[in-house]
Amino acid sequence: MTSIQHPVLLEELRRITGPAHVLCDGDLSAYTQDWRKRAQGKALAVVRPASVEEVAAIVKACAAAGVSLVPQGGNTGLAVGSVPDESGTQVVLSLQRMNAVRAMDAANLTITVEAGCILQSLQEAAEKAGFLFPLSLAAEGSCTIGGNLATNAGGTQVLRYGNARDLCLGLEVVTAQGEIWHGLSGLRKDNTGYDLRDLFVGSEGTLGIITAATLKLYPQPAARLTAWAAVPSMEAAVTLLGLAHRHLGAGLTGFEVMGQFALSLVDKHFAQLRVPLFKEAPWCVLLENSDHESETHAREQFERLLETALEDGCVSDAVVAENLAQAHQLWHIRESIPLAQAEEGLNIKHDISIAVSRIPEFVEATDALLRQHIAGVRLVNFGHLGDGNLHYNVQAPEGGDAQAFLRDREEEVNTLVYDSVARFDGSISAEHGVGSLKTDKLATYKSLVALSMMRAIKAGLDPQNLMNPGRIVRL
Amino acid sequence: MTSIQHPVLLEELRRITGPAHVLCDGDLSAYTQDWRKRAQGKALAVVRPASVEEVAAIVKACAAAGVSLVPQGGNTGLAVGSVPDESGTQVVLSLQRMNAVRAMDAANLTITVEAGCILQSLQEAAEKAGFLFPLSLAAEGSCTIGGNLATNAGGTQVLRYGNARDLCLGLEVVTAQGEIWHGLSGLRKDNTGYDLRDLFVGSEGTLGIITAATLKLYPQPAARLTAWAAVPSMEAAVTLLGLAHRHLGAGLTGFEVMGQFALSLVDKHFAQLRVPLFKEAPWCVLLENSDHESETHAREQFERLLETALEDGCVSDAVVAENLAQAHQLWHIRESIPLAQAEEGLNIKHDISIAVSRIPEFVEATDALLRQHIAGVRLVNFGHLGDGNLHYNVQAPEGGDAQAFLRDREEEVNTLVYDSVARFDGSISAEHGVGSLKTDKLATYKSLVALSMMRAIKAGLDPQNLMNPGRIVRL
Repeated sequence: MTSIQHPVLLEELRRITGPAHVLCDGDLSAYTQDWRKRAQGKALAVVRPASVEEVAAIVKACAAAGVSLVPQGGNTGLAVGSVPDESGTQVVLSLQRMNAVRAMDAANLTITVEAGCILQSLQEAAEKAGFLFPLSLAAEGSCTIGGNLATNAGGTQVLRYGNARDLCLGLEVVTAQGEIWHGLSGLRKDNTGYDLRDLFVGSEGTLGIITAATLKLYPQPAARLTAWAAVPSMEAAVTLLGLAHRHLGAGLTGFEVMGQFALSLVDKHFAQLRVPLFKEAPWCVLLENSDHESETHAREQFERLLETALEDGCVSDAVVAENLAQAHQLWHIRESIPLAQAEEGLNIKHDISIAVSRIPEFVEATDALLRQHIAGVRLVNFGHLGDGNLHYNVQAPEGGDAQAFLRDREEEVNTLVYDSVARFDGSISAEHGVGSLKTDKLATYKSLVALSMMRAIKAGLDPQNLMNPGRIVRL
Repeated sequence: MTSIQHPVLLEELRRITGPAHVLCDGDLSAYTQDWRKRAQGKALAVVRPASVEEVAAIVKACAAAGVSLVPQGGNTGLAVGSVPDESGTQVVLSLQRMNAVRAMDAANLTITVEAGCILQSLQEAAEKAGFLFPLSLAAEGSCTIGGNLATNAGGTQVLRYGNARDLCLGLEVVTAQGEIWHGLSGLRKDNTGYDLRDLFVGSEGTLGIITAATLKLYPQPAARLTAWAAVPSMEAAVTLLGLAHRHLGAGLTGFEVMGQFALSLVDKHFAQLRVPLFKEAPWCVLLENSDHESETHAREQFERLLETALEDGCVSDAVVAENLAQAHQLWHIRESIPLAQAEEGLNIKHDISIAVSRIPEFVEATDALLRQHIAGVRLVNFGHLGDGNLHYNVQAPEGGDAQAFLRDREEEVNTLVYDSVARFDGSISAEHGVGSLKTDKLATYKSLVALSMMRAIKAGLDPQNLMNPGRIVRL
């Protein structure tokens, strides 16, 4: 029984949230195992507070007991940042009960929600009021906005609207000392000192706990159109991106690139999705045009862009979705790549970014490097080219033992890929964060000067090292 | 002679930059007096390095001597943040010689420049390559991008493109220890740890010295149109803003509100500018529509918006500039308000922000409060309504002694205005920063929890307290 270790603390936690919301027994794997089942931790307790005051009291109680806290939203992270370690001494602080929409301010174009609000609920609340909350990613049905902010989530609309960071105007945070910072500003400009908001965004719960946020809303576009283009090379995809920026301006809300092998896996495992054009070209691009005028206008714009691109030669063939159902299907193909990969077998994932201009050279060099080291290696390459963000994934050679491949070669593959990323001045985590998975890698690939500043900040704000310790930087 | 105090340090500085770039004698007021002549400091020396390595060496030398540094760009700040104090013991580190455009990356839509690059030179370099660098503000002919970033400058294009912060993808920084952080990433996504970039942006040189930046570029719009509308109330202006967001989408790049008295001062002192419509209405609004298609399209969009607004009643009359010259003239009127104010006499300036939705109520309440306390007070109110940012300035009663008014009542006026801002959950510095002018005010109006975190960060990154000490937070 873990509960014997800290009977006083557990009693105090039960007093704070009510006994029903301090879980110690039974199957807690929903809280202690990560989404991709890379890690199975053990918690002293899972606490589920209902208010920021309860969160503050929990943090104070844990600080007094010297017990560390792991904040958790939907537990859908891909970098093992929100589950406890195996010691059984950490408290998981689940924000799921704090899921209210606190306020909607139409004239200010803002919405204020609690950290545990599911991303999709937030999108729906915005839509109901006639607005768009543009953050959108695969896990939106179960991830929470608190987790999105803690990891500075990206997704498919970053090109136009930015990462989670860019959509956030203010935060409510419980500090490592259990104080409440009421920073829920709906202000678009505020130059009164250091940017604490952006420091907490992306800090993965290691500096304090985000309990609520004020977020930007946008007018709903009048029309959203989706196109699918076959392109003869990655250079051509980059050229098309430049043309799309010029032709569509801020209307360009999506620009996804997908490699032929990635699409062939979708075709193989989900033939009913009928992947267009992929047999003709090494890469396909999915483009989205969001128009504030009309569908007719959006279509004209798209057609003019694609005509120019066909003439230029950076596109060899293209289709524009005729209706919403077709548009959804094209997006569905893009979003099915990870599932098709999983059907094909275990694989090694990388979430990297490079300056857009250098991506063609990076892909060519890294593909060649991997093929040179691993005969028959299969590269599942797709991602948000408009943001310079690739999911550069590595699948075992066909017919081989994928489990053995991962066991024997994952470290080697990671080193090859990350060393190449470093040579191209890129990032080894574009949108998924660091978590436990990449903390050691960060120590290798991040500049020592940056790491030293990060440690000074961590030590300054969380001197007891009790907020999600061991993630991002170790003290 | 100040130079006797630290002969060894001065010798070392001369060795680093060459003796011609260490100024100790003669008229140094361009470096020691602030733009608005609110403060006249005294420097031990003004050092003008030519490279990041020289900056690093200077910081190390000063740290070893225990001498504090005041980084300076164009010295156009409005909050007295870039001049030395009166002690004669501080070194001014001028970045003006570091003004190169280091790189332009068209496919990545980025430009990398040194901190001392004049904002206008940067805009011109972008334009020459066919791009837009959207940061734009009154001092652009002499302010530097380093200063813009250090103060997170705002300006007239924030509505669409954000503050200086939002335009920055990466920084090169010399830390308080004299280490160089090479963070000049051109990446649009990078979730590898704490957001150091945004911590330095807006930190006003108190955490380290920004020496270069990689910045976002945008395609040049095909057309920019400007309109001028008379609106019957501030509520109507907010309604018009909402309509403009819906009709123009991301095309809406400017939304400036100007009070009748502010415009009457322009009319009085610069009659040749022929201010339109201001006699008809308590407020006028300047709107800008940037279109990626064509001028014809921009004009149609604008006309549709203004027709709707006239029907709705939120606009009583409006003109659209027929050509670029007319557009420039409308902007020129807006930008002449501070000059007209100065012609009218000394005045008390406030750079505040409030949630857009609460601005009408704030203006009504604060106007009434000031009129109640100060008979005949004249309110010069204008600003970037789209960002919730007002320059809520206070002019002495007509015919009174403005100097005496400032001397006797500035503190009272500031307290009335800032207390009102606090009641409306606003900010006492929207886009000008804190500097020396507002450091004490910050201690009053900023949350204690936030101040305590800011001090922890300052102490962690600059434990000797030598980087622009006394600004933002005092240790």
